Amino acid sequence: MYGLIGKMMAATGKRDELLEALREGITGMPGCLAYVVAEDEGDPDAIWITEVWVDEASHRASLQLEGVRRAIERARPLIAGFGERFVTRPAFGVGLGSDGGMGLPN
Amino acid sequence: MYGLIGKMMAATGKRDELLEALREGITGMPGCLAYVVAEDEGDPDAIWITEVWVDEASHRASLQLEGVRRAIERARPLIAGFGERFVTRPAFGVGLGSDGGMGLPN
Repeated sequence: MYGLIGKMMAATGKRDELLEALREGITGMPGCLAYVVAEDEGDPDAIWITEVWVDEASHRASLQLEGVRRAIERARPLIAGFGERFVTRPAFGVGLGSDGGMGLPN
Repeated sequence: MYGLIGKMMAATGKRDELLEALREGITGMPGCLAYVVAEDEGDPDAIWITEVWVDEASHRASLQLEGVRRAIERARPLIAGFGERFVTRPAFGVGLGSDGGMGLPN
């Protein structure tokens, strides 16, 4: 599995709009086991995106999906920048869609 | 929803053992929508735990579950310390168990 944990900074006051722009892009992504978009509790302009993919190629391919490209276009003017970014190898978990979960090997 | 993103440092060379200790603790946690344990790609002793709960109370209650307490006991001697920790409010996502997902309000 391939994982990403990343912080995105919305333009001041635009976090809700940014969330809406992202919401529509994350359905129907092949190989996506988990994709959670969350507000940072301590920073009113920050969001965290945590992702689990079957492999890195699935993540890369998702960036070419029409729905994802449209969401990126909508989100772009609402993004002020990016914060921390961590690449991970998910080992196991709860809530990893139908392809993953406790039984999937590393 | 209530979310946590946290980095845990294994004692040198003990990451695999730490993962095994944690693996058994994370089943059957009421209110847990997602719980992913991942190796840090760039740091051989680090793991990331990303969690989504129905609310903060569910997370707090989980720490009293017998399975979780046993896992914490097993994990404790394998943990060298903790790194970054971010508290979040998950807004929506893919892979949020049966209680959550796209339709759940903030």
